[in-house]
Amino acid sequence: MSDHHSPAAGSLAGIRVIDLTRVISGPFCTQILGDHGAEVIKVESPGRGDVVRAQGNMVNGFSWYFAQFNRNKRSMTLDLRHEAGKAVLHRLLEEADVLVENFRPGVLAKMGLDDETLRAQYPRLVVGRINGFGSTGPYRDRPAYDFIAQAMSGFMGVNGPADGEPMRAAPPISDMVASQNLAFGICAALVRRERSGQGDIVETALTNGLIGMMGYLAAEFFATDRVPARTGNDHPMLYPYGLFRASDGEVAIAPSNDAMVERLLKALGMLYLLDDERFADNTRRMANREALRECLTEVTETRSVDAWIDHLNRAGVPCGRVHDLRETFADPQVQAQQMRIELDQGELGRIPVTGFPVKMQEAPAAVHHPVPRLGEHTREVLAELGLDDGELRALEAQGVI
Amino acid sequence: MSDHHSPAAGSLAGIRVIDLTRVISGPFCTQILGDHGAEVIKVESPGRGDVVRAQGNMVNGFSWYFAQFNRNKRSMTLDLRHEAGKAVLHRLLEEADVLVENFRPGVLAKMGLDDETLRAQYPRLVVGRINGFGSTGPYRDRPAYDFIAQAMSGFMGVNGPADGEPMRAAPPISDMVASQNLAFGICAALVRRERSGQGDIVETALTNGLIGMMGYLAAEFFATDRVPARTGNDHPMLYPYGLFRASDGEVAIAPSNDAMVERLLKALGMLYLLDDERFADNTRRMANREALRECLTEVTETRSVDAWIDHLNRAGVPCGRVHDLRETFADPQVQAQQMRIELDQGELGRIPVTGFPVKMQEAPAAVHHPVPRLGEHTREVLAELGLDDGELRALEAQGVI
Repeated sequence: MSDHHSPAAGSLAGIRVIDLTRVISGPFCTQILGDHGAEVIKVESPGRGDVVRAQGNMVNGFSWYFAQFNRNKRSMTLDLRHEAGKAVLHRLLEEADVLVENFRPGVLAKMGLDDETLRAQYPRLVVGRINGFGSTGPYRDRPAYDFIAQAMSGFMGVNGPADGEPMRAAPPISDMVASQNLAFGICAALVRRERSGQGDIVETALTNGLIGMMGYLAAEFFATDRVPARTGNDHPMLYPYGLFRASDGEVAIAPSNDAMVERLLKALGMLYLLDDERFADNTRRMANREALRECLTEVTETRSVDAWIDHLNRAGVPCGRVHDLRETFADPQVQAQQMRIELDQGELGRIPVTGFPVKMQEAPAAVHHPVPRLGEHTREVLAELGLDDGELRALEAQGVI
Repeated sequence: MSDHHSPAAGSLAGIRVIDLTRVISGPFCTQILGDHGAEVIKVESPGRGDVVRAQGNMVNGFSWYFAQFNRNKRSMTLDLRHEAGKAVLHRLLEEADVLVENFRPGVLAKMGLDDETLRAQYPRLVVGRINGFGSTGPYRDRPAYDFIAQAMSGFMGVNGPADGEPMRAAPPISDMVASQNLAFGICAALVRRERSGQGDIVETALTNGLIGMMGYLAAEFFATDRVPARTGNDHPMLYPYGLFRASDGEVAIAPSNDAMVERLLKALGMLYLLDDERFADNTRRMANREALRECLTEVTETRSVDAWIDHLNRAGVPCGRVHDLRETFADPQVQAQQMRIELDQGELGRIPVTGFPVKMQEAPAAVHHPVPRLGEHTREVLAELGLDDGELRALEAQGVI
């Protein structure tokens, strides 16, 4: 076993999370909480469970897509439309610190768990929710999906080649940014609860998360009242920056300020370019981007990508290779950082997934549980709640679990 | 004043953060903490301060780019290379809950604050750090920059048009994802500290954060040993999905499962397409993507974008318009969600910035402080630490503050 299968308690040890979410945004959030030690109980509908269990790349009937978002959880089945199922959910909430859901706005209320009820019955509970557009406003009831959030947030509008159409990011980035926002928000609310005793209702939306990432592009629009242009792999405010042709491929080079540009030109043996009035400062370099690109390429294409990466890094210039995912996971730095780990899935063997981006020295993230089978822990969780065998059999007979 | 200028305490009220960061990744992280009530003291070098103060779109000498990442902080100047400056930093840390830094690995240690010293002298302190590649491994000392992290993480490799080059995301997404990861990690460590009394050292890296976002694309690679293809605005696993031509522009449509595809076809009056063997299930629709796109476009191009958005949303099909940033911030939903807010910058007027993506009902995020001038709060902060006028004057005379 590698050392990421650590028995050490994570930062969120002792925090119990009831997870009603499915698909991506919610499960990724609760996985982050689980990675850091929270006890996550994934509540799934009997029969099929989370739809992602049957999606993406399946190997021996097991979805590796599902595996990316559902380690460090136990799974129980529960029919939340059934009165007996709702009663069990209340039992779960009595023992819980956090409830997470990503239903459309209003769905949880229809199950009897409107905000007022949650606050009144579970004043210490932190409720986390993700939806498409927010639970207030004219679009609150619209169906949502990552691609639509990428389109409506303005994110696609700034992305893509200068001469091409608006372009989505390949990962479902609105989902995953929302997951991160909610994981943060839940923990911030837990910090407050430790001090005040009071829970909170925390919400984020796919669109809002991406709007919050607009940073200097939003600043450009606000300051100039002009919509930022799409610039592909060029930076809108800096040059040189981008992909440069080497003898056997392309090298990404990104000096972030004048001092680094000087280091780059020195390393290329082209310091004299700073005496060329076309390239004397960043503003003029931006205006004469194509001319400077030609000058630089005359030199960069004389040596290999590896040679430049070695040489420029020594010179203190940020640079690197554009990796495909095979190269990324084979990279010695990525391996040193354990960004590919393996889950022991028993009969299914050891299954690779991405590792932990947040490293802690005292209470590190770890694999506490592999990916659960649907309902694998139903009886275990209900027994912990104090339900006896008769009650369990009755719930089974009714199809509630 | 609008209601986001709330005097209410946020979730992190009472948490004091010493912020040594600059540029984007660190300042965005500490701004998130400040938005939610933490007291953030931004420590800047005397004279110039954070380089972003002089970058991006400047209006009346004030950087709107800087404003995007530095509300809800106080600013003090301090020369950390000076012995007297280091002594002041120790005074600050004695009263602090969190220290955040985004120096290259080893720089803080050179200032005398190596991990052992931090743990020994400040056992309750949560130390948060962001760097390029992680503080261990062969690339730990390489200079880093967002573009390089996008390239080396595999993120660019999956992004972009199917027939084009690997493409960066327009926002500095590796910085901003790292900011979110660190904000989460700091809060998780604070939850543990409330319970155990022990601090922690929390780290994230630009590359690691993006690798953590590879989700189902990583799963595809792990499961098939094939590198995922770039697919532009098409989804690698679903069709229909993407931009469709309407009479006056394009409409983004993304039904996420078979039931929604049926709703879409019904809403288009084309339910008969499901009887066409080329389109009977998702696998066959993927194989006959171009043929189906042509069929659908024959209908979508007969009506306007607005008409389709109204009609398809009523039918329960996720859809929307590709907004540029002007359209995004003019959108009634974005306004209802207050994703554009204004900072009262005194003589500079009211300056718009993006709003809070994480909404809390009991302890909402708020503007507690506008963007500080360089060193605006130096004397205030030092006086709170108990330094008297003579000590302040001596520090000034030495150029330490």
